[in-house]
Amino acid sequence: MAENLPFTKPEYARRIDKTRKAMAKAGLDAVFVTDPSNQAWLTGYDGWSFYVHQGVILTMQGEPVWWGRMMDMFGGRRTCWMDHANIIGYGDHYVQSTERHPMQDLAAVLSRMGLAKARIGVEMENYYYSAKAHAVLTAELSGAALEDATALVNWQRLIKSDEEISFIRRAARISEKVVRVAIDKAEPGVRKNDLVAEILHAGITGVGDDWGDYPAIVPLTPSGMDATAAHLTWNGDPMRAGEATFFELSGCYRRYHAPLCRTVFLGNPDDDMKRAETAQMEGIEAGLDAARAGNRTCDIANAFMDVLAKHGIEREGRMGYPIGLSYPPDWGERTASIRTEDETVLQPGMVFHFMPALWMDTWGLETTETILIREDGAAEALCDVERKLFVKP
Amino acid sequence: MAENLPFTKPEYARRIDKTRKAMAKAGLDAVFVTDPSNQAWLTGYDGWSFYVHQGVILTMQGEPVWWGRMMDMFGGRRTCWMDHANIIGYGDHYVQSTERHPMQDLAAVLSRMGLAKARIGVEMENYYYSAKAHAVLTAELSGAALEDATALVNWQRLIKSDEEISFIRRAARISEKVVRVAIDKAEPGVRKNDLVAEILHAGITGVGDDWGDYPAIVPLTPSGMDATAAHLTWNGDPMRAGEATFFELSGCYRRYHAPLCRTVFLGNPDDDMKRAETAQMEGIEAGLDAARAGNRTCDIANAFMDVLAKHGIEREGRMGYPIGLSYPPDWGERTASIRTEDETVLQPGMVFHFMPALWMDTWGLETTETILIREDGAAEALCDVERKLFVKP
Repeated sequence: MAENLPFTKPEYARRIDKTRKAMAKAGLDAVFVTDPSNQAWLTGYDGWSFYVHQGVILTMQGEPVWWGRMMDMFGGRRTCWMDHANIIGYGDHYVQSTERHPMQDLAAVLSRMGLAKARIGVEMENYYYSAKAHAVLTAELSGAALEDATALVNWQRLIKSDEEISFIRRAARISEKVVRVAIDKAEPGVRKNDLVAEILHAGITGVGDDWGDYPAIVPLTPSGMDATAAHLTWNGDPMRAGEATFFELSGCYRRYHAPLCRTVFLGNPDDDMKRAETAQMEGIEAGLDAARAGNRTCDIANAFMDVLAKHGIEREGRMGYPIGLSYPPDWGERTASIRTEDETVLQPGMVFHFMPALWMDTWGLETTETILIREDGAAEALCDVERKLFVKP
Repeated sequence: MAENLPFTKPEYARRIDKTRKAMAKAGLDAVFVTDPSNQAWLTGYDGWSFYVHQGVILTMQGEPVWWGRMMDMFGGRRTCWMDHANIIGYGDHYVQSTERHPMQDLAAVLSRMGLAKARIGVEMENYYYSAKAHAVLTAELSGAALEDATALVNWQRLIKSDEEISFIRRAARISEKVVRVAIDKAEPGVRKNDLVAEILHAGITGVGDDWGDYPAIVPLTPSGMDATAAHLTWNGDPMRAGEATFFELSGCYRRYHAPLCRTVFLGNPDDDMKRAETAQMEGIEAGLDAARAGNRTCDIANAFMDVLAKHGIEREGRMGYPIGLSYPPDWGERTASIRTEDETVLQPGMVFHFMPALWMDTWGLETTETILIREDGAAEALCDVERKLFVKP
């Protein structure tokens, strides 16, 4: 067993148990889990090796099996809680080969485990389960039934344990730090990349003993017209007076996130932007108040949209998602969404990035919170940074 | 057309032309390209939005079409060279929905483009083309033939243009800087995350006007036993005397990479490690000398392995791959490999990360170079950092 595991054995046992209940409900004998976040959540596996095929095999009994590239087996031994016998590797001649595919090895492993004729759940909609992987596995395991188990594990992650919430709270301290650095150091003439360097430095040094891990998304820091687009990163241009810059950032503590966005205006924003700020802040308050156990995700979205409508501002699209443990390319959990058509019932321990950004024709305004659904009352915003458009005249 | 494109119009025209020749050879009417690196290479598109479905449609005529989430269309307008009419978006109700899939929208787009019965190449083996995406697209476009065009575009990227080589040279200056920072600041007692913060800060500030972009892989910096595993990242532990730490790093200039690894030993390495160092350095020299136009990738690998065998050291696996433009999770191009069974013929303008790392039972030794195949003579190592095991007694 690895030293220095992030979580206790009972916590991992809880996760395995919860997942098996979902498997039983879906009538599955086993799941093959490719999402790196799901792998880490079940086994502790942690390494930047998800660019080759790897995954966790979980059946209804015994320890899960981590399967990956031979050289990453050693990373498995350093990070997983299972017996070394349950950490297995395939040869390097399978890696990015034009002749062989790692799924040939996986099929042999599954057969040896007695699963050649089993009902096996696979994550059809995942970055790390390619169309080719599925085609090869299907062909090699012709006696098995491969069922779509996309997000089966992700849904088990929706309600966080106390251990997990403590990790997210630590990430939140780091998020506060990086957002404050961004706000403090943003000035006309500062090159954007130099500012991002400060942000990353602040995040990775962390807060006290809570060292910073890499967030699953790099800093998104667009200014002016670039901020009308949601997902631009940075360049070497100097910041300019008269422009808004939004900072979409997150601290990360041992793979757990607490995203937090704020917007800075260098100069004096016009009345349109000020009106949008007023509407956004009032809408966030309304959303937080609607984010109560027993309500639904759509209630949060509708509360925000009602305020926006009152202020005569149009907006479409999703405005949030559950967060926690994650690996690139996304820090969202890809299950529930905060949107008007999503009816997931809120329960204590759920954590969302409530993200009602406004991307307008010539500027963008992002002010967001990571929120925890409580037993009673409105949701708790886990970060403590003043909620407003930051204006630096 | 976007301002501040990284490359000239003739450079993009060259890429499109080369890709179309490959499409014609493969008998394809169109390709749908999901690899973010291929998208950027063809169109300039640059944003952290690859965590939702998006791609480039290239037919045999006219401009390519960038297709993605509606809110990322604006990022497309800011970064792509095409007419805005060729940058199109799908609604947010398709995003991570349990009821709808973005490939339904793509199928409608392809049909409108007259491709409902076409032979369309798709990248079956790519992180961003999921098994589900392929299943939905196949069902929705039942009259079309979806063919596996994995790496069709990647192979066109193998020989770099002069414009690209100039970008990789700038990335190499940044790589030298970050590796020197790592070597200089590594000391017993320094927390690994604090060292990584310095490395990231150095990389993103860049060198002079050449601002740093985010590398496609975060710093890999394991020490001691953790360095027996290839892909561990970092934690908050202090560095210790008596341990080797390898630094697998790359500078990045506008998405172009020049990976460079060095290993630091704090204290005095034992004779085993010193012997391995001697063998590794001699093997790298031999590999560079074999890396000549007209030779094959396996000649580089064999030259290295011969030296290793002479020194009585066993090693398996791949020892390099082409590099250049890339997005997470991998900075390799996933085409040729430097390994004993790969017979790709080397041509001037190819750039590889020659990566003959040694991962042993109780330590790891990574010393690598980014190398350019020249018209004549041995390959050029693009970075200039002393090639040895760095010992800090």
